[in-house]
Amino acid sequence: MSMKVFVLFVATALVASQCQGASFRSFPLKMKTEYGDESYTEIRCASWRLAAEALNIFGWETIPEECVNATAKYIEGKQYRSDSKTVNQQAHFFARSLDVRENDAIVFSIDGTVLSNVPYYSQHGYGVEKFNSTRYDEFVNKGDAPALPETLRNYRYLVNLGYKIVFLSGRHESKRAVTEANLKAAGYHTWEKLILKDPSNNSPNALEYKKAERAKLVQQGYRIVAVIGDQWTDLLGKPEALRSFKLPNPMYYIY
Amino acid sequence: MSMKVFVLFVATALVASQCQGASFRSFPLKMKTEYGDESYTEIRCASWRLAAEALNIFGWETIPEECVNATAKYIEGKQYRSDSKTVNQQAHFFARSLDVRENDAIVFSIDGTVLSNVPYYSQHGYGVEKFNSTRYDEFVNKGDAPALPETLRNYRYLVNLGYKIVFLSGRHESKRAVTEANLKAAGYHTWEKLILKDPSNNSPNALEYKKAERAKLVQQGYRIVAVIGDQWTDLLGKPEALRSFKLPNPMYYIY
Ligand SMILES: [Mg+2]
Ligand SMILES: [Mg+2]
Repeated sequence: MSMKVFVLFVATALVASQCQGASFRSFPLKMKTEYGDESYTEIRCASWRLAAEALNIFGWETIPEECVNATAKYIEGKQYRSDSKTVNQQAHFFARSLDVRENDAIVFSIDGTVLSNVPYYSQHGYGVEKFNSTRYDEFVNKGDAPALPETLRNYRYLVNLGYKIVFLSGRHESKRAVTEANLKAAGYHTWEKLILKDPSNNSPNALEYKKAERAKLVQQGYRIVAVIGDQWTDLLGKPEALRSFKLPNPMYYIY
Repeated sequence: MSMKVFVLFVATALVASQCQGASFRSFPLKMKTEYGDESYTEIRCASWRLAAEALNIFGWETIPEECVNATAKYIEGKQYRSDSKTVNQQAHFFARSLDVRENDAIVFSIDGTVLSNVPYYSQHGYGVEKFNSTRYDEFVNKGDAPALPETLRNYRYLVNLGYKIVFLSGRHESKRAVTEANLKAAGYHTWEKLILKDPSNNSPNALEYKKAERAKLVQQGYRIVAVIGDQWTDLLGKPEALRSFKLPNPMYYIY
């Protein structure tokens, strides 16, 4: 079991739906600091963000209250776009370094990776509000989520290279029509599979659900060349991709 | 095998000494960007740093040439200190959440974690120069490396909580006297073990060496509660700690 996955287990296993987290907050407990004053909030919040990206902090339900403005600035500014680009580029460099085989698949998460949910989170404190599945469903059902531009560009490269695209999402099966329409409207016109969560699925959390779906892909004969996702639970656990790519997401954590 | 470790294997297995990397550079190949102009160097370099911390980029021999100034600014400024603090705090929060047992150990890397080598790297382009073991040995042999202040503070907390401290370093056995003296001079006055690399050790790289040494600790009856290191190869592979903490290090990558 990987260190990372182990960490997730240690973090306790709350039943998880999209964006639901653990019952504790590890930050900003005792964030006494020599800096102290308000002008260092941005520095502290950048540290929080880095620590979350490297999975030093996990299981958070909401971002720290003091980090709403810093998160907004990050997400709406050039840094988030550049960070998204760099990771997508790495995936592209890796993909084009291989000889593409017939059944080579690249697995993408949808929300926060392929489709941006910044329009939703910008209306909900960039993750400072606890996840509300009813409201998030309303956003999904509108079907107008824009592409994350850097992922769309990478998707086009990967399609051109001959890779099979698999979208693997925690969205429920009932969202299939709206999800297909949204993907197409956003510029994703072709895919091998769109895997959504069946009502009968009893995976305890996103990690187990996605592992199980990757296992099915391998059983069906696919080689999973890469997984590209905005959550560690998109990436971790067996079977693993040849390489896994973690896109930035400082707004929510999914078990 | 963990995704992260798998990634390391995929990356090819060059025989590694301290700071030696792979024979390829995955950045800034084709870093064409819509931004283009020089003022965005800092943004691109922050993206590179984030991607490296989350192991989306690995196996680099040197930092990108365009990132020398950005790395200097990061390392010498408040952000690196804050980032180091946040990760050490997370380790501390975790450690104090447990009931400490007799043989509970916390494993630290030395260089870049316990002792700062910024005085060395600030003289060598913050990682833009290829690693030179002769020069680095000269730095080590001076024995005057300062503590990384945030790690020292955490170390004191952990000692007070009753944890046994293990320093596990890729430094060679011949450096024992100078390393002990340096640790004490920097404020680290007590430890359970100082594990250095024996001349007869034939581990192919730091990852395997550190895994094997952790395995010995487990055999000796220790429970490895945490590993705190500045390299992914300090953390990954079995046996793993209950939790692993990745301190920032944007200056070099060790296999
Ligand atoms: Mg996602
Ligand atoms: Mg180190």
